Amino acid sequence: MTDVTRFHTHAPENLDERFARRASGMQASEIRSLFAVASRPEIVSLAGGMPNLSALPMEMMAGLIGKLIAEHGQEALQYGSGQGHPKLREQICDVMALEGIRANPDDVVVTTGSQQALDLISRIFIDPGDVVLVEAPSYVGALGTFKQYEAQVVHVELDQDGIVSDSLREAIKTIRFSGRKIKFLYLIPNYQNPAGVLLPADRRTEILEICRKEKIMVVEDNPYGLLGFERPSPNAMRAEDSENVIYLGSFSKTIAPGLRVGWALAPAALREKLVIASESSILCPSNFTQMAISSYLADQPWRNQITAFCKLYKVRRDAMLESLDQYFPKGATWTKPQGGFYVWVNLPPEIDTKAMMPKAIVAKVAYVPGTAFYADGLGSWSMRLSYCHPTPERIREGIKSLGSVVEQEMERRSGGIALN
Amino acid sequence: MTDVTRFHTHAPENLDERFARRASGMQASEIRSLFAVASRPEIVSLAGGMPNLSALPMEMMAGLIGKLIAEHGQEALQYGSGQGHPKLREQICDVMALEGIRANPDDVVVTTGSQQALDLISRIFIDPGDVVLVEAPSYVGALGTFKQYEAQVVHVELDQDGIVSDSLREAIKTIRFSGRKIKFLYLIPNYQNPAGVLLPADRRTEILEICRKEKIMVVEDNPYGLLGFERPSPNAMRAEDSENVIYLGSFSKTIAPGLRVGWALAPAALREKLVIASESSILCPSNFTQMAISSYLADQPWRNQITAFCKLYKVRRDAMLESLDQYFPKGATWTKPQGGFYVWVNLPPEIDTKAMMPKAIVAKVAYVPGTAFYADGLGSWSMRLSYCHPTPERIREGIKSLGSVVEQEMERRSGGIALN
Repeated sequence: MTDVTRFHTHAPENLDERFARRASGMQASEIRSLFAVASRPEIVSLAGGMPNLSALPMEMMAGLIGKLIAEHGQEALQYGSGQGHPKLREQICDVMALEGIRANPDDVVVTTGSQQALDLISRIFIDPGDVVLVEAPSYVGALGTFKQYEAQVVHVELDQDGIVSDSLREAIKTIRFSGRKIKFLYLIPNYQNPAGVLLPADRRTEILEICRKEKIMVVEDNPYGLLGFERPSPNAMRAEDSENVIYLGSFSKTIAPGLRVGWALAPAALREKLVIASESSILCPSNFTQMAISSYLADQPWRNQITAFCKLYKVRRDAMLESLDQYFPKGATWTKPQGGFYVWVNLPPEIDTKAMMPKAIVAKVAYVPGTAFYADGLGSWSMRLSYCHPTPERIREGIKSLGSVVEQEMERRSGGIALN
Repeated sequence: MTDVTRFHTHAPENLDERFARRASGMQASEIRSLFAVASRPEIVSLAGGMPNLSALPMEMMAGLIGKLIAEHGQEALQYGSGQGHPKLREQICDVMALEGIRANPDDVVVTTGSQQALDLISRIFIDPGDVVLVEAPSYVGALGTFKQYEAQVVHVELDQDGIVSDSLREAIKTIRFSGRKIKFLYLIPNYQNPAGVLLPADRRTEILEICRKEKIMVVEDNPYGLLGFERPSPNAMRAEDSENVIYLGSFSKTIAPGLRVGWALAPAALREKLVIASESSILCPSNFTQMAISSYLADQPWRNQITAFCKLYKVRRDAMLESLDQYFPKGATWTKPQGGFYVWVNLPPEIDTKAMMPKAIVAKVAYVPGTAFYADGLGSWSMRLSYCHPTPERIREGIKSLGSVVEQEMERRSGGIALN
């Protein structure tokens, strides 16, 4: 490369004034700058949510994908359908059947990761000022998207068993009294991101009943549903209600995220708008990565592969919970996930986990401060720890270091000697 | 598969009322239903814009991609950067250098096809009612996106040499007088879609000067720039103005569309917003397809491959122009593209090309009616013919059939015997 530093582009001076109103919400999140630091090799990163691909047999993937191009290259490398590849949409229905869903491939829309489905749903439903209900805390990427569509995000209480029905009823009442429109409830019933909790079957039914009665759509985001460690997850909420639930699925955690293949299963009237919105957004999803997933599902023992992923994550979950017990001070509490990637830790309210981050980095460990998962500024004494990627040894090492940092911070804040 | 017809989802009755305002614009385009018919094998489709991949050596692609997974699978199948793969962004700068652009990889944002770049730019700039200037006619996919962001699209005159400077000045004056904000000028300077025309160097300079002076951003969409048949295209507009131009590029026509890799080159202040908007939209583009392109650019004689594509398209362009001369009636005129995929045909004003379509389908040939390329209902006596995909023999056959259909339609409309 030649020296390119001279070729930087410069924006016209008054560029800001020309942006749309929504662009003011396009600010770098706190999580972004954090990841740059956390990815340094000497840091034990409990921050990211990257799946652990060490269990994926790469030689097999290489052979399968090479064969796909050699035999079906003209189709795989060409434009495809805006709604997604027909065969893959059938196979997606088979995958969803594992969680009790009976669906028609015609109602499936394939997306560039389920993040794109979130974007399309927001585009279809959200006018500026509309309310979106989410769990407290909720997935940072969903909050970012809702914010770009200028939604008013309202958090609903979550406990060890997921979203709390009475709090949902209260929230709806309060919001309706204020005259705002509630467009949908967004939730992650299985091994929630970031809290790691599981919504039991009876609560699922109750939440569905509330939303049906109140005419509020449910957006069920389910990337982790097949990653239960001890037993299968309860049936998907969509299995119980095909009219009022938009279901989002993803292969990012059960196969590989680099292929960027997710999907939405939606009522027919909505599905057509999803396809049109997706075509306007990306024309069509990649035929190539869709057909790679399709070949994998057709030719490989994919259920066994998911079992292999579960084993790998369970060992890591155990390492994290054991070392939290061992190294974290009294006064800290945390969730005990039965699947997925995440543990949610609450510290005493005087601790500010964002302010504590630089100390953790010095101690060579990283996490995500709790405020990232709230649209309303809460979460300051919480943190998300992910166990999906590091080795169990590194997890123990990281939790030990972080335990010391937390302990010092608690001592300092609770009237110990103020060191700085 | 089991019988899935029973499992269709039904939407709640009042679903429509819950949509966002912008959703009312999400209607199936006329081009969509057309493509379903045009893809039947007995029809000569001059409708689609699918690149012809017959010149792409599939064995080589298969080997290259298999090797990529075997050697770099852990990276290729993992989440990547929201801005795009660093090495690919460097290589993209080398590709753009062929059209005189000097750029920094930091200013490149990789997108899921350049359609996604259009979506992101719309998201950043367009408030409902804002004006976007486009050529008359313009790319149907761009019009769809601008419409979803509730832009007011204003067409500016195009002649055999592209957009007309004086008409641009007039349009700006008229719109400003009405009090509307003009957010950007969107144009395709090389072998325009759908008109096939090329904007000469001196007009590029003039258009850039007008837009700089009027503080209107230029969005230069350039998927066909390297597909000039007789000589290279003039330098990209971005080569002349790095401050006021957002440049969109794509590998869909020079390598393969099924990988869905495009990019935007934008001034730094805008680039950060593009990345944030893209993360909210799809989290990150596929590492896998980006690295596939990157390997291809690194290891293969990609310039020769583009030359091979040009030869393939030139033969087809020649077949189309020759048979238009031979088979189309007097009173029809058309553009003579020096590159790209498309010929634009104007018929006498009494012809309605949309109404004529069923007759063309009966004659086993398909095209896209001109109205698809206008946001304002014009184009009714025009049509887009694409020569990229069929064989030269099929093109001749299709044009011959279409010539008869047009001739009959002209006779019927100009006072011949009204047959129906």
